[in-house]
Amino acid sequence: MWVLVRLKGFQELASVDHALRRFFDVVEIRRPEAVSVRLGRALYRVLAERIVAREDLPRVDRSAMDGYAVKAEVTFGASQFKPKILTLVGNRVVGDECAKQVWTGNPVPEGASAVVMLENTKRVDDRIEVWAPVAPGENVSKSGEDVRKGEVAVEAGIRLRPHHLGLLAALGMSNVRVFGKPKVAVLSTGNEIAEVGSERQEGQVFDVNRHVVSGLCEELGASVVDLGVARDERREVVEKLKRGLRADAVITSGGTSVGGSDLMPEIISEAGSPGVVVHGVAMRPGMPTALGIVGGKPVLVFPGNPVAVMFAFEVFARPLICRMLGLSREEVRPSLMAKVTRRVTAALGRRTFVRVRVFRSAGEFFAEPVSARGSSLISTMTRSNGYVVVPEDREGLEEGEAVLVLLFDGVGEA
Amino acid sequence: MWVLVRLKGFQELASVDHALRRFFDVVEIRRPEAVSVRLGRALYRVLAERIVAREDLPRVDRSAMDGYAVKAEVTFGASQFKPKILTLVGNRVVGDECAKQVWTGNPVPEGASAVVMLENTKRVDDRIEVWAPVAPGENVSKSGEDVRKGEVAVEAGIRLRPHHLGLLAALGMSNVRVFGKPKVAVLSTGNEIAEVGSERQEGQVFDVNRHVVSGLCEELGASVVDLGVARDERREVVEKLKRGLRADAVITSGGTSVGGSDLMPEIISEAGSPGVVVHGVAMRPGMPTALGIVGGKPVLVFPGNPVAVMFAFEVFARPLICRMLGLSREEVRPSLMAKVTRRVTAALGRRTFVRVRVFRSAGEFFAEPVSARGSSLISTMTRSNGYVVVPEDREGLEEGEAVLVLLFDGVGEA
Repeated sequence: MWVLVRLKGFQELASVDHALRRFFDVVEIRRPEAVSVRLGRALYRVLAERIVAREDLPRVDRSAMDGYAVKAEVTFGASQFKPKILTLVGNRVVGDECAKQVWTGNPVPEGASAVVMLENTKRVDDRIEVWAPVAPGENVSKSGEDVRKGEVAVEAGIRLRPHHLGLLAALGMSNVRVFGKPKVAVLSTGNEIAEVGSERQEGQVFDVNRHVVSGLCEELGASVVDLGVARDERREVVEKLKRGLRADAVITSGGTSVGGSDLMPEIISEAGSPGVVVHGVAMRPGMPTALGIVGGKPVLVFPGNPVAVMFAFEVFARPLICRMLGLSREEVRPSLMAKVTRRVTAALGRRTFVRVRVFRSAGEFFAEPVSARGSSLISTMTRSNGYVVVPEDREGLEEGEAVLVLLFDGVGEA
Repeated sequence: MWVLVRLKGFQELASVDHALRRFFDVVEIRRPEAVSVRLGRALYRVLAERIVAREDLPRVDRSAMDGYAVKAEVTFGASQFKPKILTLVGNRVVGDECAKQVWTGNPVPEGASAVVMLENTKRVDDRIEVWAPVAPGENVSKSGEDVRKGEVAVEAGIRLRPHHLGLLAALGMSNVRVFGKPKVAVLSTGNEIAEVGSERQEGQVFDVNRHVVSGLCEELGASVVDLGVARDERREVVEKLKRGLRADAVITSGGTSVGGSDLMPEIISEAGSPGVVVHGVAMRPGMPTALGIVGGKPVLVFPGNPVAVMFAFEVFARPLICRMLGLSREEVRPSLMAKVTRRVTAALGRRTFVRVRVFRSAGEFFAEPVSARGSSLISTMTRSNGYVVVPEDREGLEEGEAVLVLLFDGVGEA
């Protein structure tokens, strides 16, 4: 469960699975209250109520074609050489030897049991010739065929996509209850960090992580509370953390092992019980990650390196936010199987996240590892479109090996 | 190129490829003007400018580790049994036999060429013992290693995702130019259509298509102009179309072959030249699709059936909107290879879109066709998470066949 490593400050690293278990055992997920929104504002929101059909969909039998509604039996034996002649009626009941014109979607009139397609008929004055027989029910959408009254149409905890909106509209839902958006406060720490747009001091770099983390939060559907950049000073960090704890969760980056002093984890453990429950995870990149809970609110403390931040987010923030969103199932990135184009080594005992560029060539998917020495090179992420997880018991990936790739951007042709 | 079919109103169907060529040959893509937005508002927008690095990233050599910056040569031969003793210096230049403490991300001081990891050292007063040698450049992020000055960091026409925002921030871009959002006006037509939330008349159904099309537009990043529902009356449709043409494109559904009168295509051809350029496409579902151009603006006329609308959108609206967004490459849905779980038939001569439910089982992906008689059953889309395209020269899919599935929702385990 614990991996011993020779590194100051991290005598013990929790395995990823252990860290997840330990954190989610302790953290209490508080979902923001559900709100009612108009259907037109519900895209991508998470449904907070189970939608049960209050009536059959369609409500009544409807024509699935442009044509003529008839009693099926009267068409039996009809052919182009021996058409059946039927009288057109305008009233609603279709008797024997009668037909009523219907367009796609029209209710099938009383008395009729099938629809003859327009192309299999010929109109002559107020009569039609029917050239082909239809079976009972043919070209008819039966009531309840789409969704039956009382059936669960959409489950709670689903993220609403365009087709869900369509079904909800069909069922007459002009408003739906969705979960409120969880608020995630995002903070970058470090004396070497300057906010983009500001004047950098000597040795400072522009803040990357807050932009990446905020984007990842928004992508999932959380609201971001921007805490800005804090210097490595206890007072400043404490004050920002306090503000952040008014949100539903806090994500910080930097300061996990800065100056050997572990400023952030210390502050979090002092801020409230249980404080830090995980510090140091057997993953690469992302090892100096710390996970804590203060006043019942999750506080994720990510390292300073941007690539480490992205994977720490992937592993810890994504499942957390998915639960806070009210999703019934963790939302995983689109994935596919691809062949690794070259050998990659990984550290035994660590879960390794290998950035790859997936492309399609001759109908096959390939994953090309994007080489990177460290986890500070943000350009390695823009050159990648996915990643492969190498489990702890593997020393790497073999050339030609088929692996599951999780995608964070589009896949092109080679 | 043209497929002859026996159906009133559609003597000739254009193949999908022909329809696409014909439409995109004539249509003139007008991209909304670029606007400057703060980085924090740029997520998912399409970059309108090529971003060239104005300086090396990192600007200077930086430490990739917590440790001590040294001249690499002085560590050669060091071991735990025979450590090198170096004097700690606070000033900026590191001379021979000297070391300066650095944290990850700190600039490497003048004179130093490598960083010894903290764990390979022991501090004794104002000196350190170095237990392992480092090669020149070891544990150092060289200036320009991430992005070199003058290099293209992000190309124009890219949709900005969290990792792009990170790189732009690193490069000091607090504002970026993105393309304006194209406006798409969305209209549903048909006497049988009632707006959800309103009172339905006998035989009316709630509008599904406007909600689906609006959702699909928004998903791509277009703005929706809601034209509501129009009855099958020339005056009403003409008036709504006129309003819609103030937007950048119009998408309607219904009225493509209603009452045999092809109301929408007629109105569009009357509204301006060239009017309708495609009417009837050899695809299933989606056959009665019409494509037109009025006053230089694209007008897409989709059928009334919701499932047909989704696939017509996929085939015609998606590439159109991608171009209007300024994307340099059409954005395709995530896709994967999966095994078809059972045989499916398709119509020779039509491009057939088969709804499937993809699931993963024992590390393999499977695609289970979602059976559906017609294209009116919106619930078939909520039961699916992807689709397979059966080309015109195939009569279906075989059981066990490996096919490419395009995904419109998440994939779960079996």
